[in-house]
Amino acid sequence: MNTYGKLFRITTFGESHGPAIGVVIDGCPAGLEIDETLIQHELNRRKPGQSKITTQRKEDDTFKILSGIFEGKSTGAPIAIVIENQDQRSKDYRHLENTFRPSHADYTYEAKYGIRDYRGGGRSSARETAARVAAGAIAKQVLKNYSIEINAYVSRVGDVQSPPYTQLDLSKTEDNIVRCPHPATAEKMIDLIDQIRLNRDTIGGVVTCVIKNTLVGLGEPVFDKLHAELGKAMLSINAVKGFEYGSGFEGTKLTGSQHNDEFVKEGKTIRTKTNHSGGVQGGISNGEDIYFNVAFKPVATIMQDQQSVDKEGNEVTVSGKGRHDPCVVPRAVPIVEAMAALVLADFLLRAKISRI
Amino acid sequence: MNTYGKLFRITTFGESHGPAIGVVIDGCPAGLEIDETLIQHELNRRKPGQSKITTQRKEDDTFKILSGIFEGKSTGAPIAIVIENQDQRSKDYRHLENTFRPSHADYTYEAKYGIRDYRGGGRSSARETAARVAAGAIAKQVLKNYSIEINAYVSRVGDVQSPPYTQLDLSKTEDNIVRCPHPATAEKMIDLIDQIRLNRDTIGGVVTCVIKNTLVGLGEPVFDKLHAELGKAMLSINAVKGFEYGSGFEGTKLTGSQHNDEFVKEGKTIRTKTNHSGGVQGGISNGEDIYFNVAFKPVATIMQDQQSVDKEGNEVTVSGKGRHDPCVVPRAVPIVEAMAALVLADFLLRAKISRI
Amino acid sequence: MNTYGKLFRITTFGESHGPAIGVVIDGCPAGLEIDETLIQHELNRRKPGQSKITTQRKEDDTFKILSGIFEGKSTGAPIAIVIENQDQRSKDYRHLENTFRPSHADYTYEAKYGIRDYRGGGRSSARETAARVAAGAIAKQVLKNYSIEINAYVSRVGDVQSPPYTQLDLSKTEDNIVRCPHPATAEKMIDLIDQIRLNRDTIGGVVTCVIKNTLVGLGEPVFDKLHAELGKAMLSINAVKGFEYGSGFEGTKLTGSQHNDEFVKEGKTIRTKTNHSGGVQGGISNGEDIYFNVAFKPVATIMQDQQSVDKEGNEVTVSGKGRHDPCVVPRAVPIVEAMAALVLADFLLRAKISRI
Amino acid sequence: MNTYGKLFRITTFGESHGPAIGVVIDGCPAGLEIDETLIQHELNRRKPGQSKITTQRKEDDTFKILSGIFEGKSTGAPIAIVIENQDQRSKDYRHLENTFRPSHADYTYEAKYGIRDYRGGGRSSARETAARVAAGAIAKQVLKNYSIEINAYVSRVGDVQSPPYTQLDLSKTEDNIVRCPHPATAEKMIDLIDQIRLNRDTIGGVVTCVIKNTLVGLGEPVFDKLHAELGKAMLSINAVKGFEYGSGFEGTKLTGSQHNDEFVKEGKTIRTKTNHSGGVQGGISNGEDIYFNVAFKPVATIMQDQQSVDKEGNEVTVSGKGRHDPCVVPRAVPIVEAMAALVLADFLLRAKISRI
Repeated sequence: MNTYGKLFRITTFGESHGPAIGVVIDGCPAGLEIDETLIQHELNRRKPGQSKITTQRKEDDTFKILSGIFEGKSTGAPIAIVIENQDQRSKDYRHLENTFRPSHADYTYEAKYGIRDYRGGGRSSARETAARVAAGAIAKQVLKNYSIEINAYVSRVGDVQSPPYTQLDLSKTEDNIVRCPHPATAEKMIDLIDQIRLNRDTIGGVVTCVIKNTLVGLGEPVFDKLHAELGKAMLSINAVKGFEYGSGFEGTKLTGSQHNDEFVKEGKTIRTKTNHSGGVQGGISNGEDIYFNVAFKPVATIMQDQQSVDKEGNEVTVSGKGRHDPCVVPRAVPIVEAMAALVLADFLLRAKISRI
Repeated sequence: MNTYGKLFRITTFGESHGPAIGVVIDGCPAGLEIDETLIQHELNRRKPGQSKITTQRKEDDTFKILSGIFEGKSTGAPIAIVIENQDQRSKDYRHLENTFRPSHADYTYEAKYGIRDYRGGGRSSARETAARVAAGAIAKQVLKNYSIEINAYVSRVGDVQSPPYTQLDLSKTEDNIVRCPHPATAEKMIDLIDQIRLNRDTIGGVVTCVIKNTLVGLGEPVFDKLHAELGKAMLSINAVKGFEYGSGFEGTKLTGSQHNDEFVKEGKTIRTKTNHSGGVQGGISNGEDIYFNVAFKPVATIMQDQQSVDKEGNEVTVSGKGRHDPCVVPRAVPIVEAMAALVLADFLLRAKISRI
Repeated sequence: MNTYGKLFRITTFGESHGPAIGVVIDGCPAGLEIDETLIQHELNRRKPGQSKITTQRKEDDTFKILSGIFEGKSTGAPIAIVIENQDQRSKDYRHLENTFRPSHADYTYEAKYGIRDYRGGGRSSARETAARVAAGAIAKQVLKNYSIEINAYVSRVGDVQSPPYTQLDLSKTEDNIVRCPHPATAEKMIDLIDQIRLNRDTIGGVVTCVIKNTLVGLGEPVFDKLHAELGKAMLSINAVKGFEYGSGFEGTKLTGSQHNDEFVKEGKTIRTKTNHSGGVQGGISNGEDIYFNVAFKPVATIMQDQQSVDKEGNEVTVSGKGRHDPCVVPRAVPIVEAMAALVLADFLLRAKISRI
Repeated sequence: MNTYGKLFRITTFGESHGPAIGVVIDGCPAGLEIDETLIQHELNRRKPGQSKITTQRKEDDTFKILSGIFEGKSTGAPIAIVIENQDQRSKDYRHLENTFRPSHADYTYEAKYGIRDYRGGGRSSARETAARVAAGAIAKQVLKNYSIEINAYVSRVGDVQSPPYTQLDLSKTEDNIVRCPHPATAEKMIDLIDQIRLNRDTIGGVVTCVIKNTLVGLGEPVFDKLHAELGKAMLSINAVKGFEYGSGFEGTKLTGSQHNDEFVKEGKTIRTKTNHSGGVQGGISNGEDIYFNVAFKPVATIMQDQQSVDKEGNEVTVSGKGRHDPCVVPRAVPIVEAMAALVLADFLLRAKISRI
């Protein structure tokens, strides 16, 4: 249940306000050189308190590797990474012990398990995604051996939309705090989020992810199609409401003659003229760019009073407290990349056994 | 790879033009009364040749149960169902042995496996979904024990869009050949598909699925969130390009104060005033309607000449042959329902072990 | 539950007296040349009615491949094999509908599922192993690519014991009906079984299996040790009561200085002087012969009256009917080989992903 | 690969001389009261340095729970337990960097992975079993809810054999340092081990495990038979060479009429007169005592010079160093119990979903 992947597999654990969160990566091939600074780099991209448009909560998110790496290389043994929780302020949450916050997981956890760690959302907290990001940083190092590059960025906040990725320089994503590589759009997004924050409200958005230099042949034919697994991986991230790849929902309005990607020969390589397929045909990568959109709802915690009920069914007022993000998408960028990396690393291993 | 589900698990097999396709259902609880006519009923909804807007290919799709059912009840042993292939006309496909049809899986299968059964798409054919529909008909009988109802319908063809589901009478879905329960919209959809067919072209669309009477507590917290698993299941269906649930992509434009679903008490039940959450919070069902959209691209096979390449990289012209659907969504409706039923049956079993 | 293996995976289905039994092999690498006559050859070795010391029940055990093989080669798609049931004589079993035969699975199935297909043991019948043998014949063809050879034989019947395998010519196993490659011992075994049969009784025995030319590096370090998986595979065969490999139970009486296998260099290869390890160290093959013993209890069905109870708890007499084996081990030889082949094929694939 | 179990699932990590070892338990039902002192109790039973007949190495084996338990109860979230490594003395092992110790995993790990953490055996060290024991202590608390009791003891050291378990008082197992509940035999065992230790040698033995008050219906019919899973679990423990349950290898010498367990009614319960079946019929528990034997080879590390080769194939002499057990079976008792508890907890959960 808390494990993801078939061959390159992660198991995460930990609650928002417990002693620590962490991840065990099982199935990382032996002999991989691990650069630990890249793990910290990715954790820093995700961590709270980075800028005025993210939560002001400070978390160091320093990690410790407990196993699986020896003299700088993976040994084939499971890699356990632990991140201790700090700045927990559990007191902030005691008032929520019996209350179900709107559009949070409080009620469903209580109903399912009969018990819940209510402190900061417990296991349902997005803090769990730090473990994914740490594991994703290892997966990215697997992908680097194959020159595969993953670049996510914020393509929409509210209704502020950036141009399509083919018109963008994705190396500029980290140049601004909203992580949109189109400077003019980024500015508008930041203004919008800032305004929303002042309104004590939150706003949703879209993260777009582009994967370049994908090998041909990743993905499995039927249930474990490459895009199906990417879809599940993205939808498993907190606050995600939708996933589309290639031409996506808009593509359904096209005709087959408009939508089909004709094959052409380019040197020795078979390419497609267009890429409505989003780099995936029949569930298997064809070597073109893989690109997809991930929809994030507005953060559920708002600095306003809301009506709700408590465990006993009494009407109560939930008042927003604590320090929360007005918009989750800037910090979601490294999480989307991490999940994409985990999916691809898994399929890379699976592809090794497709032929005798 | 060809298995779906954790506890209620299906394994499908078979190629479009081999002797048979089929499915093994493993993990169906013992003692379930099985009505075999419901399996045939679902297969009939999916089968080709139903109307002027679907392919004219005739397939009987009669099935045979080989195991797992004794005196009308499941025994706990695996249920194997086989559907023999008929009307195969393999000759239709011999010209495609060396050619890669645009936006089909021909190229990626060849690249991945170095060998492919090119007849009718082989394993990549949507014929495989008949096995899913047969298995889904068993899953639906599991759900019936819990009064859970699944209703999918065509909500958009091209840009012809039906009103939202809350304004529809879902019992009318089967009243017309396009499977849209809104008669006026259905008529427009049929006209559009008919026009597209005359143009020797194809068109995409959207299937919406609504699940009512869901228990509270289905779905798992982290990776196997209810909507993540539904997303994967839908994205694994041939031609699907996107998935969104609840407020979906549009919901990302809202603010938290607009989007949050406040809890209220209704009799003894905790409900939400609105349902942007789509019946799922923190990956777990909250008892409200679960609803989601599935985007289908236009069918890749068109009755027109297209440019492509063959195995050796020579430029070739692919001419549309055979009998194909101008629009896949009407026949996709029972497939979407089947996959939803399989996901829910699996989570129903998983929910049985969530507490001591 | 009815699936075995991680990467080379089989799912079996079918009851003794249903329409058919079968298996779906998922994960067989593409491009494997499949010789179908080898499948029939293995099924013939397992089938009833081969000689005077096996059951006189006649079953043809002819199989049909439904998918996954195209023009003589595996395609990477699942391979489904079906064997229809014949000579079912279900009437033979109607008297057992309410009775629990001693040391059979009747009672435990009834208690677990509340329903059981009582005809011939239903799912618990050793007939299920025919599906394993068919799948094992495919696995053997995978192993042949690596020159790995599996040879099982009968090493003991009752207390008639053959010399150790290192003193035997394993190519002679099929030379006699009891499948013991030591002619003098084979004669004694046959005499013993014949005597037991005349007594309307049954007798147990041991099958020894030897695997030669194993690659170094098969098996996984912790839970999925090579011998642990072989043990599970063997113990999952009907009537098996024990498993030991290498020095086994007797080896526990030795001291470390007697038991340790010292390493030596032989040409370019690292070998061990002795092989108490049975070819496995730390759960991973070291290239020496893998050998193990599998203990089979006496067949539970005897041609004698036995006391038992029925569903209501009434005392009843069970009278042996039908046609059964006086000793199961000769027919178990191909089953042991099949399961060993499945385990090794799985580990061969797993070994492909152990390094970057 | 480092995960065991289907529904009650553990993933272990850690090397002998890394920062820590640990385990993540996933699938523990919510609401289980956890007594943490029982975890320490089991760890203490396993830890080195307990008596003169075990290694004199001192390890504290104190554990820390990182997640999954809130206010004394399991929450349904994964339970992570970490045990830091102390007293590591890595210097002890530097001389083994290039040397393959006889009957250790050094050579096979090196051959499989191309890299190994040679310090104290790294991942292949029996230290990994501490993580299993910690997890098993949680599993035992699940079983306690069903009154299931697991008792293992040392039944043989070398050729010193205790009487059968039915003649023993299993509550006396902890009364002596060798963990044999038969005092006279225990004394002989201790003398033997002490003698072996003085000879700078080691000796093997057998652990017997008895499970009482098992529910009827645990275990799955085909591959995941209760005894097959127990067999795999036991064979996955370091140094185990064999597994037999019920009548085991000796039972193969019996006839069916001697071996069959006739059913009788005892009050309202269906029982068997004898228990050659070892509490398992057709892979499913029948409510009688489950009992089985686990064979442990002599510890490979001996305080004597042995011939071996190094990485380059040069002949070398391996001299025994460090502090090691002359006989592993006394400390193996809690490990056998832990693995048995993990298997049963898993099957208890699986049994919950066997019927509609």
